[in-house]
Formats: sequence, structure tokens, C-alpha cells
Amino acid sequence: MRPDGRQPRDLRPFAVTLHPNKYAEGSVLIEMGDTKVLCTATVDEKVPPFMKGQGRGWVTAEYAMLPRATQTRNQRESIKGKLGGRTMEIQRLIGRALRSIVRLEALGERTITIDCDVLQADGGTRTTSITGAFIALALAVNKLAASGKFARYPITDFLASVSVGVWNGTPVLDLNYEEDSKAKVDMNVVMTGRGAFVEVQGTGEESPFTREEMNDMLALAEEGIGRLIGLQREALGEAGARIGTALV
Amino acid sequence: MRPDGRQPRDLRPFAVTLHPNKYAEGSVLIEMGDTKVLCTATVDEKVPPFMKGQGRGWVTAEYAMLPRATQTRNQRESIKGKLGGRTMEIQRLIGRALRSIVRLEALGERTITIDCDVLQADGGTRTTSITGAFIALALAVNKLAASGKFARYPITDFLASVSVGVWNGTPVLDLNYEEDSKAKVDMNVVMTGRGAFVEVQGTGEESPFTREEMNDMLALAEEGIGRLIGLQREALGEAGARIGTALV
Amino acid sequence: MRPDGRQPRDLRPFAVTLHPNKYAEGSVLIEMGDTKVLCTATVDEKVPPFMKGQGRGWVTAEYAMLPRATQTRNQRESIKGKLGGRTMEIQRLIGRALRSIVRLEALGERTITIDCDVLQADGGTRTTSITGAFIALALAVNKLAASGKFARYPITDFLASVSVGVWNGTPVLDLNYEEDSKAKVDMNVVMTGRGAFVEVQGTGEESPFTREEMNDMLALAEEGIGRLIGLQREALGEAGARIGTALV
Amino acid sequence: MRPDGRQPRDLRPFAVTLHPNKYAEGSVLIEMGDTKVLCTATVDEKVPPFMKGQGRGWVTAEYAMLPRATQTRNQRESIKGKLGGRTMEIQRLIGRALRSIVRLEALGERTITIDCDVLQADGGTRTTSITGAFIALALAVNKLAASGKFARYPITDFLASVSVGVWNGTPVLDLNYEEDSKAKVDMNVVMTGRGAFVEVQGTGEESPFTREEMNDMLALAEEGIGRLIGLQREALGEAGARIGTALV
Amino acid sequence: MRPDGRQPRDLRPFAVTLHPNKYAEGSVLIEMGDTKVLCTATVDEKVPPFMKGQGRGWVTAEYAMLPRATQTRNQRESIKGKLGGRTMEIQRLIGRALRSIVRLEALGERTITIDCDVLQADGGTRTTSITGAFIALALAVNKLAASGKFARYPITDFLASVSVGVWNGTPVLDLNYEEDSKAKVDMNVVMTGRGAFVEVQGTGEESPFTREEMNDMLALAEEGIGRLIGLQREALGEAGARIGTALV
Amino acid sequence: MRPDGRQPRDLRPFAVTLHPNKYAEGSVLIEMGDTKVLCTATVDEKVPPFMKGQGRGWVTAEYAMLPRATQTRNQRESIKGKLGGRTMEIQRLIGRALRSIVRLEALGERTITIDCDVLQADGGTRTTSITGAFIALALAVNKLAASGKFARYPITDFLASVSVGVWNGTPVLDLNYEEDSKAKVDMNVVMTGRGAFVEVQGTGEESPFTREEMNDMLALAEEGIGRLIGLQREALGEAGARIGTALV
Repeated sequence: MRPDGRQPRDLRPFAVTLHPNKYAEGSVLIEMGDTKVLCTATVDEKVPPFMKGQGRGWVTAEYAMLPRATQTRNQRESIKGKLGGRTMEIQRLIGRALRSIVRLEALGERTITIDCDVLQADGGTRTTSITGAFIALALAVNKLAASGKFARYPITDFLASVSVGVWNGTPVLDLNYEEDSKAKVDMNVVMTGRGAFVEVQGTGEESPFTREEMNDMLALAEEGIGRLIGLQREALGEAGARIGTALV
Repeated sequence: MRPDGRQPRDLRPFAVTLHPNKYAEGSVLIEMGDTKVLCTATVDEKVPPFMKGQGRGWVTAEYAMLPRATQTRNQRESIKGKLGGRTMEIQRLIGRALRSIVRLEALGERTITIDCDVLQADGGTRTTSITGAFIALALAVNKLAASGKFARYPITDFLASVSVGVWNGTPVLDLNYEEDSKAKVDMNVVMTGRGAFVEVQGTGEESPFTREEMNDMLALAEEGIGRLIGLQREALGEAGARIGTALV
Repeated sequence: MRPDGRQPRDLRPFAVTLHPNKYAEGSVLIEMGDTKVLCTATVDEKVPPFMKGQGRGWVTAEYAMLPRATQTRNQRESIKGKLGGRTMEIQRLIGRALRSIVRLEALGERTITIDCDVLQADGGTRTTSITGAFIALALAVNKLAASGKFARYPITDFLASVSVGVWNGTPVLDLNYEEDSKAKVDMNVVMTGRGAFVEVQGTGEESPFTREEMNDMLALAEEGIGRLIGLQREALGEAGARIGTALV
Repeated sequence: MRPDGRQPRDLRPFAVTLHPNKYAEGSVLIEMGDTKVLCTATVDEKVPPFMKGQGRGWVTAEYAMLPRATQTRNQRESIKGKLGGRTMEIQRLIGRALRSIVRLEALGERTITIDCDVLQADGGTRTTSITGAFIALALAVNKLAASGKFARYPITDFLASVSVGVWNGTPVLDLNYEEDSKAKVDMNVVMTGRGAFVEVQGTGEESPFTREEMNDMLALAEEGIGRLIGLQREALGEAGARIGTALV
Repeated sequence: MRPDGRQPRDLRPFAVTLHPNKYAEGSVLIEMGDTKVLCTATVDEKVPPFMKGQGRGWVTAEYAMLPRATQTRNQRESIKGKLGGRTMEIQRLIGRALRSIVRLEALGERTITIDCDVLQADGGTRTTSITGAFIALALAVNKLAASGKFARYPITDFLASVSVGVWNGTPVLDLNYEEDSKAKVDMNVVMTGRGAFVEVQGTGEESPFTREEMNDMLALAEEGIGRLIGLQREALGEAGARIGTALV
Repeated sequence: MRPDGRQPRDLRPFAVTLHPNKYAEGSVLIEMGDTKVLCTATVDEKVPPFMKGQGRGWVTAEYAMLPRATQTRNQRESIKGKLGGRTMEIQRLIGRALRSIVRLEALGERTITIDCDVLQADGGTRTTSITGAFIALALAVNKLAASGKFARYPITDFLASVSVGVWNGTPVLDLNYEEDSKAKVDMNVVMTGRGAFVEVQGTGEESPFTREEMNDMLALAEEGIGRLIGLQREALGEAGARIGTALV
């Protein structure tokens, strides 16, 4: 039995609130259990210097936690004067994952920046951020599409992410903070709506893991991400209709 | 007539949600119209180095805006690598204002840090932060009081803040972003429940103002803050009962 | 009786030395009692990026204290690697105040930067900086005017600043360090030659203040600034002749 | 056929030079093809503040590339004033991987820091760094062991790492720079001498990958790491004799 | 003939004003022609961490230029967020030079920090800073000596510095800015009252120099420093009486 | 007798390995005893902003030590977030020295950056860096010359550097770390193939030195540099043939 009474294959309660922000081109408040992330998408009609003149767009992400998102308060990175390694790692991951399901050449020379700000953290903030960032991105892309900016719809597929781990000898899905801090293995998986892997990051610092454990965890992740993509589809409704219809 | 149809002495709709954060010792989501600020209070059982050994406590504040709290996205200060002047000015103001109604010697050697994170900004973020920070502080102090930490209740009075300005030749209360950006004068006022001034900051960069205009604005601010303190008292209910009963 | 024997409405001895620097377009060493500030004005034939192409100029200020301007040595901000909140607050204030009496469109696309470097500090460094910065600015503007750069004279009025406070229950003018550190209230006021308010910043962290105390302090400030502007006028002589003659 | 003529399961030429540095407690120059990394181990008789008083040791790593390790020169991070995200990600990975095969409680309150400085980069710098860092760590631990510092030998197993990817539709082992920059998938795998996984990091930004491709890549990695650990064992000779004899 | 009409062996007009700062333990305003440096000495009753517990003192220096000390304004290093190479080089030089004539063990565990702030620069700011820093140091040491802090007088000799160069083919003494920017060689020399060399820094970036030119420049420097030390002795009067009487 | 058995005029064993780096336009590994420096030259087809449009080139240098180049590990400057004063001083020196033997106008608008990375340090890292940097520069210039980039060969002379000092009362050449840390005087000298001085930097912080000691040290340096330039000439072989043939 897991600390919060879930079965190994259970996701935590999932909730999304669309458009919590009145300025952003797309925004969503996503909750996985007590983990709450506010994701906003900002469209900028230019690209970073290294991409200028290629006729392609860019998608990038930034990630941060409010200081008291966690049990004890963390110092702000703005006050430390630099981003920590964990923050950089996570925001690079979110950006990479999103770009895997976007045709950058279809975007045109514009940048979409997804800000993932963790209001409350109870495990799985990076995977929840990816799942939410996809929704904010889709809303922003739809808004641009509605004003006729694209010849071809730029999003090629759904995208979601979940964590899996080995807890008390059992592979479990969607770890909360308590599980995460005690798990033997911690693996974050990002997949597309068609079931392909975009990122697999498994770490066994406390204890290396076997090939069999890895297979079990990947199977759990596949199943969990499938369900999350169903929930995304439902939440987006009409707004998700064009995703993945135009095959690559 | 004001852009959103209010009369000169009208406050915007005010709403508070207590305890939005499950970890913080005190927390509140405060809304003044479309301005939304999440305030959390963190209690730390030590004081900054410069105060060690004096038997007194400390109250301080930090302020930040999410990048897309505003109409156009602002770069994160963590990425710039430093706090901007505006941020520093505001968080120094919030801290100073809160300390004016706290008996630091009654707190004991502990620090209460109030984080004010602006989720959405539509004018008056610094004044709304002060009004909300007071509530978060009161909740945290009550929690400490409930476990018998204080010989004497440390909060001496209520505290709230509002902006006033001269808009189209008329003194108006509680400016939203549109008014703020066009007002001739912008003044932020912080007052206590007993009606004393804690801070008055008036700026007439666009156009210097007269003594008479100043008097009119101060009168509006007094009235508005009186109403805000009434709303704070209501929101806190029992949790506000001990504030200001023990006179200095 | 005040610590240095002054009456409540007395300013400290005021002295200005024009042109202490042989390179700057305008410079002044200003002394208010033992507070000494070197102000230099630099003219740059371009504006910051955010103002390009508008045909308007810019006036900005920087403020710093030498490490041993004070009783105990302060670490240099260049060594800390960043400006402190107090420094930013002060230099933003000086810049704002100066811009309130300059027609930016009359300046043309050029920037005037006023550096206020405190050689010795004995209270009132920010107000003295503003009073001195105005003189340096006027000298630089005159130099430009003499070479025919302006269709319309860009300075619209005189500008000076002073501090007021409540010390031992009495409102007093122009606090020195000893008074400042013990005063109940500390208020900095900036006014124009026509007697309008540009900035009012009053702080009662130690003890909130009443409307009546505020009125008394403002009256003292008005009187003191009137005298300071007389002294500026005298110091500038011919160089001040065109200020404020061309009404807005 | 691969760009350098290798078969899909071929490693590049592997060479190690032990003790290239006369000061470090352990050092090795490791070469995988044209990728050359200098790894030094430094023993410090204390632990970081967050570990004090627990009786356990710490193993950490730092990673950097010389500016001209690559085809075009990179600006030094010391001049940029901060570490980039890639550097942080890699050095966190190396440290985590090493700690997975060290009994920290057996180390005692000391820190071993492994510096991995890339002298020349031709793909696989992070995996080569891990393989080399293990050797430098083993040499330093042996030196401490020889002077009787440990009751129990702290290293529990060998550790090596390799990259795998899908190149031209074929899974290949140990990608060089040319392959790496064009591969569809890039996966870094870290494993122990007993064949357990410590880290699996697969990224399909350019193109998501299937479960089958993942299985093929993992199989290649297992085989390649097995060979690398054989080469480490040979290079260490007597110095590797005690690793992994004392089972956990 | 030199640009300002001096002969090759002429120093510029030299002036010192003692005690320009009312707080510092020692202070001097030194002028060499139009180069003006304010030097203050601060005594701190502790030493830097790396010297703790050795019973010895420390002497260090910091150097900075006001932004408009020069013909065109320089950005403040506090705003750049770091010290430039030139600043570091100069302040290291001043500190080293001063320590060469101080018995650190006689100082006791205290630090004397000399701040050299250049108010106006016209060549020779580093050499003028050294000559002035010595005077500020002597005044501070005397103040400590007067209150009986030392068993043995800590200053062993006078110290001054001057620049020499080759200008239009002729070796010249004490270059001003115009000469400095066009000189073939630029050499800074620091010497003691007994005529020993403390620092010799000669640079021929524009054109390497011969041994003979070097000899000529050193002879000029010896003579010039002899005169400067005479001027220091005169300026210090009684305050210089104990310097160098107690031979090492 | 010197610690390593050398006579006062003996250089340490000198070795150079040409082309250790496969990407750089010029590279050398230089060893003076146990001091080992990797020097790489990078050609960039543009100049820094301050030189644009003058038709001249630029030569600059960067210097760093690997963290464990020394007996105890030094923290990386990338982690400190800034370059130390020593690093800046050294890299400015290397750049200045190299520019003294390059006709910048003959280079054309391109920059050559020499990176000197100290792999192991045993005294004389700055002088060894200069001697090695010259070789890397010559190789890069030859490569450009071979592809017909220059109308006139840009290097005017050989350049090398060595340290001299007074150790146990005797002037000695090429100090190793042990000597360097105990020497009375430490002087770094840079000279050209024609025997002219480019830089002389002598420091007597521990003990001022006499004119006679200076003369002895300069004579030793002249002799030692003569031998080093012979070794450079030999190492470069044909690659050095054009240096200095075209007199200025």
C-alpha cells in the first residue's frame, strides 16, 4: 500500500483550469495531487539571435518554484543571482520535450516561451510541468492558428510526462514527494500521443536497477501517459482537435 | 468616469482566500480587481546575523512577479542574475511597513519572511502585497501564539495599503493599470488600524502636484484603508481578535 | 535644542563650489554641514535603447558613497558585485526628480547622466544629492544651450530637496546623521521653484505618524526648500537666468 | 558503414595514462578516440556543511571543457561569470553516478572531488568523463586505503559509461561528434560491473523513438560497458583488486 | 619640450591636504598636477580569515575612479558587477607596495585598509595613489601609536612612487595623460626612503626598449622619488618623525 | 645549491610538443620542469567592437589553471563567478607581450586568441605561458600565411619570457615553486629575439632590492631568454623561418 493509499498503477487526482491568466496567449493551472503548476505561453514575434533568418520558429521553457512551494522555504534564485543546476536541467528538459512535437518551420520566425511556475510541490513537478506546458502551448498555437498565421498546423502530436519508480520493491506510477524521497529508482518519462518515447531519464543513485525493473517501469509509464493524454484531450476539447491530424 | 466604471472613491472588488498553500505557516491569495498576489509567511527559528543575541525577532519580505503577470512578458530576475531596483524598493517597503506594527522584542529570536508573489498584475501590486502580507503574517503569528510561543502578542495593530492618484484632474482611489500609467500623480499610502501613517510615497514625475491635491489624496487614502482594514478584520475573523487589543 | 545647537527651522551651513572637475560638462561640490557630495553631469549624444527614435532626450542619475564616507567603512558595491537596494532606490529617486523639471523633447536625442558621489556623509545624502544634481544639470544644459543645441530651453523650473522629521516630539528641518538615526519619522521632500511637490517620501517604521505631524513637516519642508532654491539661484547667477522663464 | 569506418558495435580506441598529475591523490588521462579527458581526484578531510556530523563522506565532480577543446572556440564559463546548463547537468550526473558505487559511511567525513577537464572533445565527453572519473576515484581511494584510513573498502563495484544512438536507422555504440550531431536518438548509459543500471538518459528531440529501438540501444550499451569495465580492470591492475570483492 | 612645458626631470605641482575626511583614521587628498586622489585609511581590529591566529596584522588597498574622473565617462564597476583587470592590478600593487615597509607582526591582529579614490585623472593615478596611500597609512599608524597600541613602531621606511617613460626619444619623469598615451615606454617605480626598489613595472607594448633606456628611466625615477619623499616628510612633519628611525 | 640541484644560471628541462590539439589553428604543450601549459591559438575572422573598421587585427590571451594544477586544489573561477586579480593580471600581460611583436595592421581584421591552460604548475606559469603562447601564435600565423592571407608577414620577432629572483642571496634563473615562494625578489622579464625588453615586472614585497641586484637579475634574464629563443627556433624549424626576416 502506498502512503496516500493509491494502488501502484494509480495516478493522483488530476485537474486543469484553463485560462487562469488574462494576459498570456495560453495558460493553464495544472494539479497532480498537491503539486500545482501555473503554465503560461507567451508568443514573441521574433527568434533568438542564433536562429535568425532561417524562417523557423523556436519553443523554449522556463521553470521556477515559488520559495514556499516546498515544506521548507528555498532561497529565490534571483537573490542567489543564478539558476541552480536542477532548475537548468528541468527547463532544458521541458523545452526539448515540447520541441519534439512542434514543426519549427511551420511556426514561422516566432518564439513561444512556456513559463512553468510551481505554486506548490509534492513530487513530480517536472513531469507535471511538461504535461501542463503542452496544454498552454496548444492554446497559444490555436490562438495564432485562428488568426491565420500558419500554412500548416505546427503541433504534430500530444505530449505528456509522468514519473515512475521502485518503491518498497514494487514499481509504482506518479510518485508523490514522500515516495520520491524514499524510492530506490526514480524515472521520468516523456511520451507522445502515438506512444513514442521523447525522453527517458532514470536514476539509481541510491541503488542501481535491473533491466527487468526498467522494463516494468517503462510499461507503467506508457500506460500512465496514455491516460494523461486522454485527460489532456478532454480538457482541450475543440482546442485539441487539430493536433496530430496532419501526419509528418 | 473611470475606465472600469468606478466612482473616484470606489475600491476594486476585493477577495481573499485563506490557506491556499499547505506548507506555509500562514498564506493568503489576495485579489484587488485583476491584481492577484499569493502571500506566504515562513517562520524561521533564528534571526539574521546582524540581530543575533538581542532577544528580538525580525520580519522581512520578498516580492516578485511571475514573468507573465503583466501584459508583456518580463525577463525573470533569476536569469538577469540580480534584482531590479523596483523589486528592491518594493520589498524594502513591505518589510518596513510590517515591522511598524510588530513588537520585535515580543517575537523572540525568530524571523518571519513574507513572500509576495504577483500571479497577475493590474496596478497596485505593492499596496495589495502589503494588505495581503499583513494577513499572512497574522496567520503565522497566531499559529505561533497558539503553541504558546509568546508572553505578549506581537502584533500591535492592523495594517493595509492603497494607492491614490490624480486622474483626469480628479483624485481617485485604488488605481488599476490603465489609470496608473496615465495618472498625473501616483501615491502609495500605508496606514494602521488606528489611522496613523506608516508610509506615504508620492511621485509627480510627469507633473508636480500641489499641497491641496496632496490633502485630497491623503483623505481618499484614509477612507479607503479604513474600508480595507474592515475587510481584513472580516476575513481573519477569530484569527484577528487579538490584534491591537494589547495597547503599546 | 538640537544636537548641533540649531533651531528646528535651521538649515545646516550650505556651500557650493562650481566646476571642481575639469572634464565634466557640469560639476559642483555641494556641502550641507558635513555632508559633501560631488555631482558631475555628463552629456552623451545618444539615448538608451528603449527611447531610440522618439526625438526625446533622457536624464538619469547614479549615486554612490565612497567606502569611508561614513563612520564605519562600507564594502564597495563593485566588490559585492551588485548595487544594494538603498543605492538603487536613491538613484531612481534622483533621476525621477530631475526629469520632472526637464522637457525631454526639448533636449533632443541625448542623455545627461548626473553622478552623485558622496565624499562624506552626515545625514541627508539623498536630498543634498538632488539639490546638487540640479546645479550640475543646469550647468551642463547651459553649456549645450550656449552652443545653440536647443530650440527651447529644456529646464522648466528650479528643483531642490530637504529632509524633515520629528525629533524629540518636535518637527525639525534638515536632519543630520545623529538626528536621522533617532528621529521618529523621516521624510524626504522634493519641490520645484514654483512650490509644487515632486516627491514626498515619509517613513514611520519606528513609529507611525499623524496627519497633523505630516502637515507640520510639509510646512517646514516648503520653507526650507524655498531657502535652498534661493541659494541655488545665487550660486548659479547668470547660469540660472533662463530657468523657468519659459513657462510650460 | 559509420563515418570513421567502425562497425555498429565497435568502441573507439581506448587509452589510459595513469598518474599524469604529480599532485592529485589520483589522476588519469583517458582517451576514447579523439576525446581526451584529464581526471584528477582530490581528497579533502572535511565534508560540505549540509553533511557535517553524520560520519559519512561525500563524492562530487566538476566538469569543464578547455575553450578550444571543440571545433570552434567556446567562451570560458569563468568569463561568462556562470556555469551553463549543460555543464551543471553533466557534473551532477558524474557525481551521482560515482556515489552509486561508493559506501559513503565507509569513507568517513571526507570529500573526494573528481575534476574532469576535457582537453579535446569528439563526442561522448560525459560518458568518457564518468569512465575516467571512476579510475581517478579508485586510485585516490586506494591511496587512502593504503594508509589505513578505512575499516571497510568504500568502493562497491566498477562503473563505466557509454553513449548509444540510432544512426542512419541502425543502433550504434559510442558515437563520435559527427554521429552524435546527426543521430536520431542519443542515449547515455551508466552501469556497474555487476551489470546494473545507474543512469539511463535518452533523448529524442529530433525524433521520438520506439520501445524496440530503446531495447536495442540498451543491449548495445550493456555490451559496450562490459568491455569498458574489462579495460578499466586491466588498466588498474592491482589497484582494482579490492573493488567489488566485499559484497554489499 | 613637454606638452605642459616641463623639463624632462620636472615633477608636476604636488599638493597634499591632510585630514579631508572627518571619520577616517587617516586621510589625505593628494594632487600631482590635475590628478587628484582621496586616500583614506580605515583600521579594523581583526584580520582576514587566512591570517587569523598568527599575531600579525594586514595592510591592503582598494582603488577606484569616479565615473567622470576621466575625459569620457566610464561605467561604474558596481554596475558592471565586477572589478576590471586594471583595477585589480592596481589595487594589488598598492597593497603589496605598502606591506613592503610595514612590519606586519608589529601591527598586531588588525587590518589597515587604504581606499584610493581618484576624483580626477590626468596620468599617474596608480603612482599618485601609492604616494598618497603611504601618507594616509602613516597618519593612521600614528593615531594607533599615540594610544599605545604598539611595542614597536610598525612602519620601517618612507615609500613613494612615480612614473617614467620615453617620450619623443627622451626619458621623462612623471607623465601626464597626454604623454602617457603617446609614450613609447611606460614604467612605474616604487621605492623606499632608503632608495631600495619595491616594484618596477615597465611595459613596452608599443615598442620594446633597450637596457640603456631602462637605466636612464630608473635613474630618473630614483631622483624623482627622492624628491617626493622629501615632500611627504615635509607634509607629515611631526607625524613622520618615527618612520625609519627603528632600523630593521 | 638550489633545491633541485641546479646552478644559478640553469634553466629547467624544456620540452615542447607541437600540435597536441587537432582543432586549433596552432597549439603546443610546453613544459619547463614540472610546469606544463597547453597553449592553443584560435583565429577569428573579426575584431572586437572597439577595433572595428580600422583595418587592423588583434591578438589577445586568456590564462587559467586547472583546479588541481597545484599542490592543493583551487576553486574554479567559473564557480566563483569571476576571474581573480592574478588571472586578469597574467592574461593582460600575455596579450600585451604578444602584441609587441605583431604588426596588427598586417594581420587584417581578424583576432588571434591564445588560450594558456596550465595543466600542472611548479613556478613560472606566466613566463612559460608567454614562451608557449608565442609558438602557438607563430603556428597559427603560418597557417594563415600559407593560405595567402597576408601581404606582409605579421610577426616581427621572437618572444620569450623567464623569471629571475634572489634566492639565498644569489640571483637565480627560472625559479620553481619552492624557490619562488621563498625568494626575496621575484622578477618576470619578457624579451624579443633582438634582445629588447617588452616587460619587466619586479616585486620586492618581502624585501626591497637594490639597483645592483636588479642589474644582476636583468643580466641573468637576458642570457636565459636568449637560450629559450634558441629552443623556440629549433622547435619551430621551418615554421619559424620568416619571423624577424622582414625588419620593421
